[in-house]
Amino acid sequence: MQDFTFFNPTRIEFGKGKEANIGQYAKDFGVGSVLVLYGSERIKKDGLYGRVTASLDEQGISYSALGGVISNPVISKVREAVKVVKENNLQGIVAVGGGSVADSAKAIAAGAKYDGDVWDFFIGKAVVEDAIPVFTIMTLAATGSEMNPYGVVTNEETQQKYNLGGPSLFPKVSVINPELMATVTPDYLAYSAVDIFAHCLDLYFTAKVFPEFTAALIENILETVMRTTSVLMKNPADYDARAEFAWASTMALNGNTFVGVADNSFDTHIIEHAMGGLYNVPHGAGLAVVLPAWMKSIKDQMPERFERFAEKMFGESDADAGIAKLTEWFSAIGAPVTFAQAGLAADAVDPIAENAFGIAKLWGMDQLYPQQRIAEILKLAVK
Amino acid sequence: MQDFTFFNPTRIEFGKGKEANIGQYAKDFGVGSVLVLYGSERIKKDGLYGRVTASLDEQGISYSALGGVISNPVISKVREAVKVVKENNLQGIVAVGGGSVADSAKAIAAGAKYDGDVWDFFIGKAVVEDAIPVFTIMTLAATGSEMNPYGVVTNEETQQKYNLGGPSLFPKVSVINPELMATVTPDYLAYSAVDIFAHCLDLYFTAKVFPEFTAALIENILETVMRTTSVLMKNPADYDARAEFAWASTMALNGNTFVGVADNSFDTHIIEHAMGGLYNVPHGAGLAVVLPAWMKSIKDQMPERFERFAEKMFGESDADAGIAKLTEWFSAIGAPVTFAQAGLAADAVDPIAENAFGIAKLWGMDQLYPQQRIAEILKLAVK
Repeated sequence: MQDFTFFNPTRIEFGKGKEANIGQYAKDFGVGSVLVLYGSERIKKDGLYGRVTASLDEQGISYSALGGVISNPVISKVREAVKVVKENNLQGIVAVGGGSVADSAKAIAAGAKYDGDVWDFFIGKAVVEDAIPVFTIMTLAATGSEMNPYGVVTNEETQQKYNLGGPSLFPKVSVINPELMATVTPDYLAYSAVDIFAHCLDLYFTAKVFPEFTAALIENILETVMRTTSVLMKNPADYDARAEFAWASTMALNGNTFVGVADNSFDTHIIEHAMGGLYNVPHGAGLAVVLPAWMKSIKDQMPERFERFAEKMFGESDADAGIAKLTEWFSAIGAPVTFAQAGLAADAVDPIAENAFGIAKLWGMDQLYPQQRIAEILKLAVK
Repeated sequence: MQDFTFFNPTRIEFGKGKEANIGQYAKDFGVGSVLVLYGSERIKKDGLYGRVTASLDEQGISYSALGGVISNPVISKVREAVKVVKENNLQGIVAVGGGSVADSAKAIAAGAKYDGDVWDFFIGKAVVEDAIPVFTIMTLAATGSEMNPYGVVTNEETQQKYNLGGPSLFPKVSVINPELMATVTPDYLAYSAVDIFAHCLDLYFTAKVFPEFTAALIENILETVMRTTSVLMKNPADYDARAEFAWASTMALNGNTFVGVADNSFDTHIIEHAMGGLYNVPHGAGLAVVLPAWMKSIKDQMPERFERFAEKMFGESDADAGIAKLTEWFSAIGAPVTFAQAGLAADAVDPIAENAFGIAKLWGMDQLYPQQRIAEILKLAVK
């Protein structure tokens, strides 16, 4: 068991209709004005935006609203929002959407307390020392952003999909109402399931120190995702399945899976961030392409871990069968597992490898992941 | 899945030697003076007290020290400590010990901000609105007190073992250094294992709403406790086993096992609190006596849950076999499973039942647990 610090002060408000209390939650933290940040205008049609703003009005919290955050969110939108927050002297942010909106909100919250360019936090030029309070109302369960202090944003000029983080970026309160997720499309449900798998498997297949309790917790998360995804593919309105899926998603990246773990890395995320930054592939779709290829490339380094995975998840006895079954499952739920299925050309291998190597350098992983090795992994996914 | 709020702001500092940073941890929260609260004087001989006070000195944090907290901690000691804190205007408490010391520290922390008698919080005469910061350094893993806002204290005059709680009672930082637990005696290791089982099984066998993810998490905790207890009985110095045992103990009562659960109750704790309040039986020992008897009394109410338990924990196919195996395991690790083994006379049944009924009333469970029913459960444990 590796020494660790566990700290996660985010308050989760989980359940039906909880978004209607967002004004009270903001007030609990002394916030009197907010930026309501969101993605598509759909939330105005379906009533969610109205419920959020009514709750803010009720508590006398003033707000500005800014929509248009996209999947693979971009730094230009973050900069635009920082300007709005500063000009209106807003005290907090209410993010209404999925991981892209929550991640953008964190960047905006840090930018609001910083005089320089917010991209500085992503490239290691500045450290997040302070931020205005972030509140989230999640409409998609995938990234775990609602209960962690990380955010990923793409710089569309430099084609870098990079991340920022810092303890002040934990959301103060996050609303997880599974009913708001009932309209997630089947493809995004699949991408979300894959994203959760990637959060867990990056750790599961790289950690040299890996307590049994933590391993079993991760298997519990993955089993929950597989079980509930199957239910939801047949019946998107199943509340309990949606709720367990959402909680598994939160648990996959809120610190619990890192307990006592050491010498782990975020291999598939490095490669996928390059894909997303260059070609705007949906995060979960990119991960579905990368994961099986990456697993094939490292299975001989940890044969026992791969055999355990095959046995626990699929009742199979060898590593290859486990990888094959996972790949089949990704395909069965509609996630792409090859370059072609993800709309990527074979000649994208080298640009992705080069971009990923830039991320590997930033994360101090360039020794482990030379560009050539990344290219070899990608080649396994081409056909 | 039941709606829920999850909130746990305690920072866990887990690992070797972390107690030597306690001065820094207190300083992180702006605390300039503390009460160092502990149990036996043993911590002075083994050097722990010296490491703690050296760390406080290093950070310029002044302190008063008070020892003598006993197992089944008493309200008279809490009152004495509240007086010391008030007279010296101390800003925080550093609890060094097991659950008894941590629980007492929470009561003292609440009492320090209250003009009336601190026992008022236990009998519902006052609500904990505010408290001075509590820090814990755990020398025993059992109660989960290091990462929750609850405390149990006995009023030795009225023979009531009651509890208090409130969000301000979450420890700010808790140090869990498994090395400090290496000298726990085999009987207290057994009592601790039983305590963790009771925290989990009270929930497992009463919850009407019980998500699969949460059920599997509880099973993971219990499997970890059984596995690591066996290792530690043979080799008390096994660091990794001690560490996993400690984390399982924390996870058993830090909110995670309550996620999405509804209509659960704390049946065995009601009965054991009466035992401990009247006869000063160690908490885990009392629970070992009560648990199997209580399980027999309710098994027909939830046959599927009992069959699942038998199968998952012991590979048995029916409820009775599961209960029998658990009882055998308690015996094997040295925990008492009858009144006689716990040093209780058969005629203690009625006084315990009467006292427990008082707690049931306070917890609003007197409909579910009339005195006669409690007596019947206890009778199952007499022989």
